[in-house]
Amino acid sequence: MSRYLSARYQSLVPYVPGEQPKLTGETIKLNTNESPFPPSEKAKAYAAEASKKLERYCDTQCNALREKMAELYGVDKDEVIFTNGSDEVLSLCFMAFCDSDKTPVFPDITYGFYKVFADVYCLPYTEIPLTDDFRVDHKEYYHSGKTIFIANPNAPTGISLSKEEIRGIIENNPDDIVVIDEAYVDFGRQSVVPLIHEYDNLIVTGTFSKSRSMAGARLGFGFASKALITDLNTVRNSLNPYNVNTMTQAAGLGALCDEEYTRRNCEIIKENRAYLTDELRKLGFTVLPSDANFVFASHPNIGGKALYEYLKSRQIFIRHFETARLKDYNRITIGTREQLDKLIETIKEFPEA
Amino acid sequence: MSRYLSARYQSLVPYVPGEQPKLTGETIKLNTNESPFPPSEKAKAYAAEASKKLERYCDTQCNALREKMAELYGVDKDEVIFTNGSDEVLSLCFMAFCDSDKTPVFPDITYGFYKVFADVYCLPYTEIPLTDDFRVDHKEYYHSGKTIFIANPNAPTGISLSKEEIRGIIENNPDDIVVIDEAYVDFGRQSVVPLIHEYDNLIVTGTFSKSRSMAGARLGFGFASKALITDLNTVRNSLNPYNVNTMTQAAGLGALCDEEYTRRNCEIIKENRAYLTDELRKLGFTVLPSDANFVFASHPNIGGKALYEYLKSRQIFIRHFETARLKDYNRITIGTREQLDKLIETIKEFPEA
Repeated sequence: MSRYLSARYQSLVPYVPGEQPKLTGETIKLNTNESPFPPSEKAKAYAAEASKKLERYCDTQCNALREKMAELYGVDKDEVIFTNGSDEVLSLCFMAFCDSDKTPVFPDITYGFYKVFADVYCLPYTEIPLTDDFRVDHKEYYHSGKTIFIANPNAPTGISLSKEEIRGIIENNPDDIVVIDEAYVDFGRQSVVPLIHEYDNLIVTGTFSKSRSMAGARLGFGFASKALITDLNTVRNSLNPYNVNTMTQAAGLGALCDEEYTRRNCEIIKENRAYLTDELRKLGFTVLPSDANFVFASHPNIGGKALYEYLKSRQIFIRHFETARLKDYNRITIGTREQLDKLIETIKEFPEA
Repeated sequence: MSRYLSARYQSLVPYVPGEQPKLTGETIKLNTNESPFPPSEKAKAYAAEASKKLERYCDTQCNALREKMAELYGVDKDEVIFTNGSDEVLSLCFMAFCDSDKTPVFPDITYGFYKVFADVYCLPYTEIPLTDDFRVDHKEYYHSGKTIFIANPNAPTGISLSKEEIRGIIENNPDDIVVIDEAYVDFGRQSVVPLIHEYDNLIVTGTFSKSRSMAGARLGFGFASKALITDLNTVRNSLNPYNVNTMTQAAGLGALCDEEYTRRNCEIIKENRAYLTDELRKLGFTVLPSDANFVFASHPNIGGKALYEYLKSRQIFIRHFETARLKDYNRITIGTREQLDKLIETIKEFPEA
């Protein structure tokens, strides 16, 4: 730290991304919820084409991308915003819709970045504990008087709320913004995007990093009423109007032109998730019921950290969290069947299993 | 605007980027200081290759890019940060090094985004007027007690301070950060990057959008002492650790592996700038002495807006500003010789010229 850093950031603790180990042929990387499948051929081809023409600025409005997205999701193009990963749209929500009078609230166990956003914007925040079985109790969010952030499915648990439970939260907070972070929704849940036409206080965010296999391209989005999207754009255009580069806009458009590919991949992930869940349970693991592209699992005899370190020594990366309530568990990204078989086989060789 | 937008943003005026007209074969676009040349073949090839592998997250540290950049600029890789365009590194500087006790100061006529950053972070700011001949009077920034932002060369004037004048500002503000925005430095000025080894209060920012022809890829950077870079990374990692996507990192690396190409292009731009300056002066224009890839010019008999609108009607885009002190002028990006000849020829046909 320098002696110049603003006092308000001197104890700021940044978000810690998952490890990005140097990949060798041996490495099995199941720690950051990436897709084991490549992006659509169209996404790759469009991006490669766009890489030939970089001397001009990108479209600050992401027009082609918004038009296609609007068509696919049944909304107007002015009800969509695109950002440099979904972290950016979440960050814009914290800026536009939180302040000292309207503070953020989110579950105590959820995407770790919400807390960091609150800290970086110097916002006091409220965490509502998950239930004993790691569920979001939706009624706890009624009449909050706060800006609500809920990942659905939640991370790192994978457990989701139903559309009607989310509707309950929205209806019982008519004067407050409800942000539903659907990063993992394509792996088992129905999106609540259509509800933006019923409620003017709903923002739904998402990412191309998971179901569309584009983590390296950085493309996130938000859906909401035109008025809310205008607000988000007011802040975006005051920070970084050229936020999504030309190649990423092209890759995203390519992916949207090949939604069948995305759907097929999601089906495979769901099958593999059921398979991994079964296999882990056979080995004595507790596995939470996941709607995401990962499972959250603990074992009565193997410590979470011990398993994580053992697998790492065998070139298999999973995600371990040190938090008290999470430390017995690990979050395991759903890979290919072959990767999961190798994982199971390796766990069976755990010295004390 | 929605009824939910935080009160502090209800009168926020975002940055207004230059027009991005639909380009036809006829269009001559000289309004946003892009390069008329394509990026290096290596930049394009590296980006195209990277577009094949997007399913994994990008490197949050931009390691390969920082190593190459450090080698070229003679600094340590921990003295460099990369961002999603240079707007992002500037934004991080406002966050990390400004607050209500340490407010920003910048010239009254300069890159329009500084004022917007101050506004979006709710920082009162000070503008120091340029001299009558549109110069930054460096001594006006001595003992400021503020965080100083200076574009060198300045925009939209193109006029620059010497290295020794900048040294004067840095030395006379030992307890305050001095940010020198070198977006246009490659077109005629020596960079002050080496001064980061002499002064712990200096940050130098730059972009690949201008001299490296990569406006569409979004790549910016900052140089400073390790401690200051650590501070900027603390804030970056609390907002968007995956800020530079895989393709842009690759394109940037390709460009850095072909610096000879960049230097050649800059030489052509400088020749064309001298040519355009001469031709405009022959037509009676006042042209400020520019070290950038644009000139700022006014004519005694042709209003700034009239010329802008006339040229636009002829498919030639230049940049006009409505501000009182700037409205007689236009900023014209240096294009190819062919584009400039067409521009001159078209100006000669101005009805009242």
